[in-house]
Amino acid sequence: MTPPNAATGYGKLTLSHQMPPAHPFDDDKLKEECGVFGVVGVSNAANFVALGLHALQHRGQEAGGIVTHHPETGFHQARRMGLVRDNFTSAEMIERLPGPIGIGHVRYSTAGNKDQRTEIRDVQPFFGEFSMGGAAIAHNGNITNALSLRRELVERGSIFQSSSDSECIIHLMARSMGQHIPDRMEEALRKVEGAFSVVAMTRTKLIGCRDPLGVRPLVLGKVGDGWVLSSETCALDIIGAEFIREIEAGEMVVITKDGVESHFPFRPAKSRFCIFEHVYFSRPDSQLGGRSVYETREDIGRELAKEAPVEADLVCPVPDSGTPAAIGYSLQSGIPFAMGIVRNNYMGRTFIEPTEQIRNMGVLLKLNVNKALIKGKRVILVDDSVVRGTTSRKIKEMVLDAGAAEVHFRIASPPTAWPCFYGVDTPEREKLLAATMTAEEMRVHLGVDSLKFISLDGLYRAVGEKNGRDSASPAYCDACFSGEYPIPPSDMIKQGFKAKSTVK
Amino acid sequence: MTPPNAATGYGKLTLSHQMPPAHPFDDDKLKEECGVFGVVGVSNAANFVALGLHALQHRGQEAGGIVTHHPETGFHQARRMGLVRDNFTSAEMIERLPGPIGIGHVRYSTAGNKDQRTEIRDVQPFFGEFSMGGAAIAHNGNITNALSLRRELVERGSIFQSSSDSECIIHLMARSMGQHIPDRMEEALRKVEGAFSVVAMTRTKLIGCRDPLGVRPLVLGKVGDGWVLSSETCALDIIGAEFIREIEAGEMVVITKDGVESHFPFRPAKSRFCIFEHVYFSRPDSQLGGRSVYETREDIGRELAKEAPVEADLVCPVPDSGTPAAIGYSLQSGIPFAMGIVRNNYMGRTFIEPTEQIRNMGVLLKLNVNKALIKGKRVILVDDSVVRGTTSRKIKEMVLDAGAAEVHFRIASPPTAWPCFYGVDTPEREKLLAATMTAEEMRVHLGVDSLKFISLDGLYRAVGEKNGRDSASPAYCDACFSGEYPIPPSDMIKQGFKAKSTVK
Amino acid sequence: MTPPNAATGYGKLTLSHQMPPAHPFDDDKLKEECGVFGVVGVSNAANFVALGLHALQHRGQEAGGIVTHHPETGFHQARRMGLVRDNFTSAEMIERLPGPIGIGHVRYSTAGNKDQRTEIRDVQPFFGEFSMGGAAIAHNGNITNALSLRRELVERGSIFQSSSDSECIIHLMARSMGQHIPDRMEEALRKVEGAFSVVAMTRTKLIGCRDPLGVRPLVLGKVGDGWVLSSETCALDIIGAEFIREIEAGEMVVITKDGVESHFPFRPAKSRFCIFEHVYFSRPDSQLGGRSVYETREDIGRELAKEAPVEADLVCPVPDSGTPAAIGYSLQSGIPFAMGIVRNNYMGRTFIEPTEQIRNMGVLLKLNVNKALIKGKRVILVDDSVVRGTTSRKIKEMVLDAGAAEVHFRIASPPTAWPCFYGVDTPEREKLLAATMTAEEMRVHLGVDSLKFISLDGLYRAVGEKNGRDSASPAYCDACFSGEYPIPPSDMIKQGFKAKSTVK
Amino acid sequence: MTPPNAATGYGKLTLSHQMPPAHPFDDDKLKEECGVFGVVGVSNAANFVALGLHALQHRGQEAGGIVTHHPETGFHQARRMGLVRDNFTSAEMIERLPGPIGIGHVRYSTAGNKDQRTEIRDVQPFFGEFSMGGAAIAHNGNITNALSLRRELVERGSIFQSSSDSECIIHLMARSMGQHIPDRMEEALRKVEGAFSVVAMTRTKLIGCRDPLGVRPLVLGKVGDGWVLSSETCALDIIGAEFIREIEAGEMVVITKDGVESHFPFRPAKSRFCIFEHVYFSRPDSQLGGRSVYETREDIGRELAKEAPVEADLVCPVPDSGTPAAIGYSLQSGIPFAMGIVRNNYMGRTFIEPTEQIRNMGVLLKLNVNKALIKGKRVILVDDSVVRGTTSRKIKEMVLDAGAAEVHFRIASPPTAWPCFYGVDTPEREKLLAATMTAEEMRVHLGVDSLKFISLDGLYRAVGEKNGRDSASPAYCDACFSGEYPIPPSDMIKQGFKAKSTVK
Repeated sequence: MTPPNAATGYGKLTLSHQMPPAHPFDDDKLKEECGVFGVVGVSNAANFVALGLHALQHRGQEAGGIVTHHPETGFHQARRMGLVRDNFTSAEMIERLPGPIGIGHVRYSTAGNKDQRTEIRDVQPFFGEFSMGGAAIAHNGNITNALSLRRELVERGSIFQSSSDSECIIHLMARSMGQHIPDRMEEALRKVEGAFSVVAMTRTKLIGCRDPLGVRPLVLGKVGDGWVLSSETCALDIIGAEFIREIEAGEMVVITKDGVESHFPFRPAKSRFCIFEHVYFSRPDSQLGGRSVYETREDIGRELAKEAPVEADLVCPVPDSGTPAAIGYSLQSGIPFAMGIVRNNYMGRTFIEPTEQIRNMGVLLKLNVNKALIKGKRVILVDDSVVRGTTSRKIKEMVLDAGAAEVHFRIASPPTAWPCFYGVDTPEREKLLAATMTAEEMRVHLGVDSLKFISLDGLYRAVGEKNGRDSASPAYCDACFSGEYPIPPSDMIKQGFKAKSTVK
Repeated sequence: MTPPNAATGYGKLTLSHQMPPAHPFDDDKLKEECGVFGVVGVSNAANFVALGLHALQHRGQEAGGIVTHHPETGFHQARRMGLVRDNFTSAEMIERLPGPIGIGHVRYSTAGNKDQRTEIRDVQPFFGEFSMGGAAIAHNGNITNALSLRRELVERGSIFQSSSDSECIIHLMARSMGQHIPDRMEEALRKVEGAFSVVAMTRTKLIGCRDPLGVRPLVLGKVGDGWVLSSETCALDIIGAEFIREIEAGEMVVITKDGVESHFPFRPAKSRFCIFEHVYFSRPDSQLGGRSVYETREDIGRELAKEAPVEADLVCPVPDSGTPAAIGYSLQSGIPFAMGIVRNNYMGRTFIEPTEQIRNMGVLLKLNVNKALIKGKRVILVDDSVVRGTTSRKIKEMVLDAGAAEVHFRIASPPTAWPCFYGVDTPEREKLLAATMTAEEMRVHLGVDSLKFISLDGLYRAVGEKNGRDSASPAYCDACFSGEYPIPPSDMIKQGFKAKSTVK
Repeated sequence: MTPPNAATGYGKLTLSHQMPPAHPFDDDKLKEECGVFGVVGVSNAANFVALGLHALQHRGQEAGGIVTHHPETGFHQARRMGLVRDNFTSAEMIERLPGPIGIGHVRYSTAGNKDQRTEIRDVQPFFGEFSMGGAAIAHNGNITNALSLRRELVERGSIFQSSSDSECIIHLMARSMGQHIPDRMEEALRKVEGAFSVVAMTRTKLIGCRDPLGVRPLVLGKVGDGWVLSSETCALDIIGAEFIREIEAGEMVVITKDGVESHFPFRPAKSRFCIFEHVYFSRPDSQLGGRSVYETREDIGRELAKEAPVEADLVCPVPDSGTPAAIGYSLQSGIPFAMGIVRNNYMGRTFIEPTEQIRNMGVLLKLNVNKALIKGKRVILVDDSVVRGTTSRKIKEMVLDAGAAEVHFRIASPPTAWPCFYGVDTPEREKLLAATMTAEEMRVHLGVDSLKFISLDGLYRAVGEKNGRDSASPAYCDACFSGEYPIPPSDMIKQGFKAKSTVK
Repeated sequence: MTPPNAATGYGKLTLSHQMPPAHPFDDDKLKEECGVFGVVGVSNAANFVALGLHALQHRGQEAGGIVTHHPETGFHQARRMGLVRDNFTSAEMIERLPGPIGIGHVRYSTAGNKDQRTEIRDVQPFFGEFSMGGAAIAHNGNITNALSLRRELVERGSIFQSSSDSECIIHLMARSMGQHIPDRMEEALRKVEGAFSVVAMTRTKLIGCRDPLGVRPLVLGKVGDGWVLSSETCALDIIGAEFIREIEAGEMVVITKDGVESHFPFRPAKSRFCIFEHVYFSRPDSQLGGRSVYETREDIGRELAKEAPVEADLVCPVPDSGTPAAIGYSLQSGIPFAMGIVRNNYMGRTFIEPTEQIRNMGVLLKLNVNKALIKGKRVILVDDSVVRGTTSRKIKEMVLDAGAAEVHFRIASPPTAWPCFYGVDTPEREKLLAATMTAEEMRVHLGVDSLKFISLDGLYRAVGEKNGRDSASPAYCDACFSGEYPIPPSDMIKQGFKAKSTVK
């Protein structure tokens, strides 16, 4: 989403810093923008937060930050561009972040657009010093009325340090008359519209909150005598924590070492969890709705095999995210599963500042087709989604160059035709292949023998809604497929965006 | 000075970052805390600001920052730990800071005290986005009522991002009702007490202001069609700018490419410029009051020779700051001047993380006595000041070890017995040698044959006050020598500091 | 293998340099020590070499080097610790390595043993200046008489710059009376015993050579008008080169832009290619013996399923190297394949300098078990090999902690009971689990319900020897399984090593 | 001097590495190429070597290296680009260099010429492993028959790792039949022509040697029970060592913890110490010939005042090297000494990669004229030498721009008209101002009111030869002034250089 100040006449501040590498290949995926994690009641919180963020790294690779509090030395903070393992695992760093309570945040990587690069001032958690003490917050999601809030706050004398929509929350808290920080946070979040899973901390309290529709995930865990909040359960596993339950839509929990208090500060609403978390964002070993995401994806593959069968010799995943659905497709169809495309494990994120010649070789740096295996075969390629279609075309070419007899694409999600305004990095609508082409046009564009997407009903069935999608009251947010926005993206609407429909 | 939030119950935030090396040797000097520079109306302001800050590097070595504005791309900013030459001279950096207007700041190095280290969030210039546009400010000096201002601002919902007293100014500006930024700055500065020379910028205006007493320096220059503000004239020389005049005490100038407007927003007061700028802070090739600082220092040496003559074979400066006074002493006394102590030019600031053994060798790393020259001689050592006395003792030992027959210390300033609260990094009062010892006790402590300081009257004469110090209305701020504070250090007084006298 | 000079009384030189991170997890694999690549007749050789080395990165991650030659500017060289993508992909680096001919080398990562760390002086290619011009060589393999050669050369006045056995070759070449560099290389290699695939270059010639038994791989490719030599075919794919053929055992090729000359400088011998290249070292998308390594590994899995069936619910690979064999096992047995263990893609090699607490969490940082999937299931875990057994134990614990009902290990290679002296980094014999335990002891030690290795005959069948292993004249080097060494490891024998048998 | 391989048809190897900054300002000085230091019999030699090299940093700023030996762990070595204080002072580095014996080397900085940049492989000490153990050597000077030696050695099979002439010594030692390393070193040095002060070490012995004419300096000191060798006495002072004596011309000392053995392996010859060490190279606080270099330089200034008096208001040194001579000139002439040109202490070596605009401002970055002091004055500028004259012109312009009424240059050395081939970095002859212009032409070229050099006789008098230069048998090497070369520069003569005269 465009940062708030770009759309106003406000002075614009560009920071110069070392740029992290862009991520050419993943350009062609929707991307989760953040992961959040917090812990209280352990001997050295930073250790746990670092591990938790490492497990959530797939939710944001560009930057990360940790804030801790120690009773004697106060708040400590470190924010860095780059991966958790490169910044937050050294003994020296952990020593600088002492104390039994801490929160952390990993932040997305925007692709290519130079003006939207993360700057260190935008890296969360954000910290504010109030008259009753300090607080830090980390936010996963997106505030859909951030522009209006920001304009109002600036007019009243607040000074924003970042271009992030999330900073509104801490300024609203600073201006609240509430006596206690959790009260101030409730007051602030009631003014905020959009999707948010927030993890916050004071000197002694760990606070978690999900927006009324519960669009983004947040789970509660227990480790020894301490408590954990995390975007996903895979981050509980890494620290040996027990998964207790998901935080409910609209719930705020205030956790001290003595236990968990639950509040419901918002008007009740029907939950609309992001269905794309099942398709791609969440890690396969995380649990959502009582089963592993891996199993759900295998079921998506099975549904896809039922809906869109084809005769072929091999089912190959586009690695790595297409693998579970490909396995499901293979199990359902009886066509053998094979790793026809091999990933270079030493790719890391990308070549740093590659030469023109290297850049032009594109996707080959990261993937290679197993020529001897593919040659003369009819191949089904299973991928999780098609966004711009650029990667799909390159992969198709690679597979044909390797001598495949036929190439059939099967996609584990419906056509992505609408941008997300709830915390996911989406291209503008006109760059979404499915926004401008019919299914057949897409097939021709990609140059494959067949191209089939799972239906929206099929996807709902795979995630556990036996009757498919209830169009009167869908169980999930599926705006990126349906164009039906459960929260009005008001800043964007003011800028001219036209949703298919919005609900209030 | 203690950062404001240390004295309050506020949450304290400690940032982790790469620590710059401490500066063991200069530990024993008072240190100017900042230098400021600004330019408007040139083709690439950042180039000029980088050069200007390089020339002002002696006023602050720990960190530096530059903000520029370009009509098309808005504000640009870079703030870095370390020296100007290491951070702000590459073509890549200058390209990131485009535009015809810019300001910059170099920041002091505190010595040793781990809790007072500069953090990147404390590096100026500070930037604020107001409803009518952005502004950046750089501040040399110290706000003596920063604690009360900060407490009030926080209670009203301002969020401070730094521990710096200077940040109050930008928050006061944000809350002002003024229609234009210069109006807001006037309003803000009227609420501020203390010593300040401020350089600020909007999208088109360069603004300079000195506090009513003009404690810290600020000069105006002209380069081609552009205008320059700088802490000292040496930074005009480096860019080939013409020195126009000093900004007056209590004056605010608003400069566009069309010219300089002058305002006097404060109640008129008699100027009290910092006399220590003449003794040590300013560079010898800068001009103050119409003559070079070098000549003034030579005259201090002459006065000292008149006040405190002694029979000896050689007059040797403690390099480099004692050199001009030693030359003056030699010229007045007729005793030959000699470089008896040699400085290692490759010392830079200090050894980075030296081993215990290397650390124990102390001052020898930076200086060496010219043994063959000194042996058997009666030596007069001329230094600019004695603060803790630790360096003086080591130098005396080196000179005696080299075989000197007698060692006579002559100090180009009166005993430093009081801390400065106007933008100079001073040890606590009890660590100042002259605060706890008589002159004879100091001589015994240092173990020298004689020790003489110039008198306060002698110093005034050397800086051009022919009748010495007018104790009813001194022409300079000399609080560090006299304990008479021309601006009440109100935050410190609340914390229990007792000045000899204060003036309001 | 112990570097030659450690075993002698020679002066030992230890270089201090920035240490790369160790690789705790992969500690428990045999490791290929090197990959080599060369190209001639292209416009900018360095670009191709960089890409080729990137594709060969799995053969050596600790360091890499490139040498090129340009007719006008002579030889150019860069050698670096770390990954190819971090060192050799920037435009700046490629510009420093101009010319139409170049060779490169990636070097292994030794684990943990501080005394065996790679030093920059040991990074290949090695360069020597002879009277008729310079030459550079890159070597994959190990010279088994390096100690005696080195001692002799030193006694005659050669000065070794590295601790590498490969440096002997260049010194032997320097002392040769041969008129041309290829002649000198032939002469040098005839004095050398052991396993070697060498890529070398002069100003105009690219030279490749395999030892008489052809233990290590080397292939020839064509790209445009240019020629390529590479350890594996996957590096031909990345640059779009055509795979021409494998260099034969005992063959030397001398390549100019005009074509390829073939020589056979050694006494003819029956080829004994390393069978472990099929099991683990080579990339699955490389071709060996006319088919993809992936297919061979799938067949190993099928053989394993025939030899060692078991009733179970899921077949899970230990990622990533166990995947093809697990797929084969699943296809053969009909038990569903599932990704029960998930790899963290952001792990890179390891946490850099992790804290004690993080380190103690061990393998969890890199892998996570899919709890919801595994719970209550009987699981077959397929891994490529068991070396020390440390990783296998941890994985078994993770799987049991996740609630698996039974755990059955199936290993896609026979028990690894003997060290390799032909260019593979193996632990000392006593640290190999299979050298000290029977199969049942290993099962108990690992704590699993069953543990089965493929038989040596089964492995031979899977790699294409229909009748299994011909014990009179095996088609492969399988010393690590059989203890039968086709080349006597003479330096090691002098140091007391006892092979089961050796062949000369 | 051109590195040997540039002039031959040999393959040329260019290493890519991080380039250190060039040194634009000092471009216009002759530059000592090296400093050497060694110590034996102390608890941790590396500490002492690091300090010694720091004190010798003025003799070479581009790179440095240390080798130590520990009885248990063997030889240890670290070589780095950059300053000693940045590379060799951390506890971590010192720990990597254990043992009671060590040697070190600092290496010159060549200016501008991209092809002559120091590469890490050229950084000394050089190490060689012989059959009886290892040895390391560090060399100050230049071998005048290096090309022929190198060609011969390469033809016999030696492989050179560097482009340095000094590497010949270690190869000659490797090929010697001598039983002990000191014997081999004697044999090697007898084959070498040129100027050399060598410090070397074996496992237990520290060895020092000066060439027969003793062109470059080397002194012996004692620290506790240990012994020290150093290029200059200032490096004894920094570690608290006692200065024992200079090593004599043609002397070799072999030092163990038990004492110093002295040998004279060469044919006796009259000493010809480099007179420029007195003028510029050595530090003013070092002792040469029984007195401080500072005093000698003051005497040079006095001689200059006698030979070339002029009426003026101020005597100003060109900092820092002109200062002692300027003081001497002032004392002799009675004209007041003043620091009219001020040096920026934060310059370090230079701006790293400065922008075009910054680069064009040239010398101003490093120096500033004290305008207010200079204005309207007749100024005598005292500098140590004129090489290309480029700096002198800039300084003259600065002084005139500042309003000086007259500018008189007085140079503390005769015109530099001939290149040095004995270990000093000199421009080619045609770039030396004095090689192509008469004194008056130089005055006009520099644009000053007068320009006077000290006479060669005057210089000899100042360094203690009361009767001036004995032209039949001069006491010093003064080839750079006289063109009379005491050692034939045979490699250069073969390349066409014509000396005025050479002595054999």
